[in-house]
Amino acid sequence: MSPLARPFPAIPAIAGAVPRVARAQYKAWDRCDLTLVTLDEGTSVAGVTTRNVCCSSEVELCRDNLKGGRARALVVNAGNSNAFTGFRGREAVDAITRQVAAHLGCAESEVFVSSTGVIGVPLPKDKAEAGLKAAFDAPECSWEAAADTISTTDTFAKGALTRAVVDGKTVTLAGIIKGSGMIAPDMATMLGYIFTDAAVEPAFLQQLMSAANRKSFSCITVDSDTSTSDTVLVFATGKAGNAPLSSFDSPGADAFAAALEDMCLQLAHLVVRDGEGATKFIEVSVEGAVSDESAHRVAMAIANSPLVKTAIAGEDANWGRVVMAVGKAGEPADRDKLAIRFADKWVAQAGLAVDSYDEAPIAAHLKGQDISIGVNLNLGAGRATVWTCDLTHGYISINADYRS
Amino acid sequence: MSPLARPFPAIPAIAGAVPRVARAQYKAWDRCDLTLVTLDEGTSVAGVTTRNVCCSSEVELCRDNLKGGRARALVVNAGNSNAFTGFRGREAVDAITRQVAAHLGCAESEVFVSSTGVIGVPLPKDKAEAGLKAAFDAPECSWEAAADTISTTDTFAKGALTRAVVDGKTVTLAGIIKGSGMIAPDMATMLGYIFTDAAVEPAFLQQLMSAANRKSFSCITVDSDTSTSDTVLVFATGKAGNAPLSSFDSPGADAFAAALEDMCLQLAHLVVRDGEGATKFIEVSVEGAVSDESAHRVAMAIANSPLVKTAIAGEDANWGRVVMAVGKAGEPADRDKLAIRFADKWVAQAGLAVDSYDEAPIAAHLKGQDISIGVNLNLGAGRATVWTCDLTHGYISINADYRS
Repeated sequence: MSPLARPFPAIPAIAGAVPRVARAQYKAWDRCDLTLVTLDEGTSVAGVTTRNVCCSSEVELCRDNLKGGRARALVVNAGNSNAFTGFRGREAVDAITRQVAAHLGCAESEVFVSSTGVIGVPLPKDKAEAGLKAAFDAPECSWEAAADTISTTDTFAKGALTRAVVDGKTVTLAGIIKGSGMIAPDMATMLGYIFTDAAVEPAFLQQLMSAANRKSFSCITVDSDTSTSDTVLVFATGKAGNAPLSSFDSPGADAFAAALEDMCLQLAHLVVRDGEGATKFIEVSVEGAVSDESAHRVAMAIANSPLVKTAIAGEDANWGRVVMAVGKAGEPADRDKLAIRFADKWVAQAGLAVDSYDEAPIAAHLKGQDISIGVNLNLGAGRATVWTCDLTHGYISINADYRS
Repeated sequence: MSPLARPFPAIPAIAGAVPRVARAQYKAWDRCDLTLVTLDEGTSVAGVTTRNVCCSSEVELCRDNLKGGRARALVVNAGNSNAFTGFRGREAVDAITRQVAAHLGCAESEVFVSSTGVIGVPLPKDKAEAGLKAAFDAPECSWEAAADTISTTDTFAKGALTRAVVDGKTVTLAGIIKGSGMIAPDMATMLGYIFTDAAVEPAFLQQLMSAANRKSFSCITVDSDTSTSDTVLVFATGKAGNAPLSSFDSPGADAFAAALEDMCLQLAHLVVRDGEGATKFIEVSVEGAVSDESAHRVAMAIANSPLVKTAIAGEDANWGRVVMAVGKAGEPADRDKLAIRFADKWVAQAGLAVDSYDEAPIAAHLKGQDISIGVNLNLGAGRATVWTCDLTHGYISINADYRS
């Protein structure tokens, strides 16, 4: 288990959303690998998906079905991503949506499917069908069981809980997420699902989801590799009884937007905490850039640098590697204005080491699990914060023999 | 020593260029760490340097002095990069150029200096001065001794030799290079020096050097991190007796250009072969892209993917990770037209695994040291080839405790 793991929160039932798990036996795992969440009529859905050009059939299906804005079911397969499997992959996805729609008596466009695992092996249709049949008959399970079941190389079940008061009603948001490698959702995200009993119109839900994504999943990276299957969906069952949110003019819209952003950030951080081989959780903050976008790109250059990440793994205050990463980012920067800090200690300012540089407090900070790196470019007002983990022997061990 | 190491070639003396080495004792190393190459009057020089915004004072000096096109000396310091050291770093570089110019009776603008090693520690001026004084008195050394002396984390001395017939005269090109980490010279290169007795006008030498760089150093990556000190310089002493080359209309210009490109490619490959922790030398070829530039970016996305590089380290034919890297490159690609091969065996075509897929010959190929990955995007005529190494526990070990 990752040393950065967090306990699964006590997530209550979400009215209108019922999780179930079953064994489709996609791999020789002695555990459930198929998750089914059924959703009551009237559930809104919004989401973001990978921009990786080689995306899976599941991602294409989600994109198509998001246009309708309504959902009745979510199916998640673990152990096989079904990506890059051509017409065979599409056939398996079509079979799943047909079977679920027939069982629930809903439109096929109201069924959402995700799969993650090895790329290039078609999802076995017969196993999916048998697994689904078992899931229909299974009892309702906990959200923790669902989080366990959507996992692949994850080392702990990842979930988050938050609440907001909307239109006088307390609404609950529950989220589960999986992912620990092939994580650089610069454009979208890994597999994450958020369920809420709030009533939110689909178009507004999508607007809020896209905005929250930019502040959360788009700001994390484990290894700079962007998955072919990345998907985050948010389902709003409307059972909390608030007047449906349709814009920021709706009472409680701000509170719900803040809760959704908080939920996304919690989930994004959990993915970094389960980064393959991670032993340190690293926050990289850049200020003084010419724009927020420029600050984001500089921060990601630092967060994706193998040399910065291995230095942190070695608890080495090698801030010269941060200088290197700033310089290679391709963004406006002036070496002789640059300042760098670890935690709240400035180690370099105006283009060279500070005169009073004392490594002792920085060495102590680097021995901890939560590392903070700050950069001030001293050029403008642009700022950004991103999160990553260190690069260790664990990452190599996990990825040099994952498939074989 | 890297398992991919190559023996140092038998490089002869280059008329007009004399290497010497000495101990400046920048670090507590029991070996020489300062290299001085003196060059006869009339030597042309050309070069390329890093585009990392946080470049060292040495890189700025080389850029300035390259404008003059003439060189009388090269000084290379190992163990301290003098990068991000502000006015203190500039003072050390100025002291070196003054001392060498006074000793040789040449202009300060004819002295070129490079330094690599830890970033952020000013080069100690007194050690440089004492080291230079010892170098002036030292006997001429071999090019292999010079290659050893410019090294830092390198595991073997890297040199290359090539010849061309120019204007009826045989000219010799000798090259030495260092570098094994912080290697992604997308814009320039690491520390490399090429010496030739050919006569070449500075402007034309620069034109040829820039062109050769685009086909060699710009096509390698070890870890996607671009150094603050990258520099390649070529010195032409003119002692071979050919009529000076001033354009492609000069007799023998084509032969010299081809020899220079061959030299740069040899040196670039040696750097990859000494990539930190490398056990496999990987060639990535992309064809069928919409342009050569697009092909290059797709090839670099594959060569920089930690998941592709760890799969190769694990001798795992996990071609799905190649699909992922193609898809994340941000270049035009159509998943359903994509084809992928290892060596000459196509594993995927038209968006899915080939029906006759047989892993045995591919597994055998992956057990070797020289790995070939090919991608056909089937969109256009653009093509590119780049080189990288695998990502192993060795990289983590080297970089998690290099400085401490």
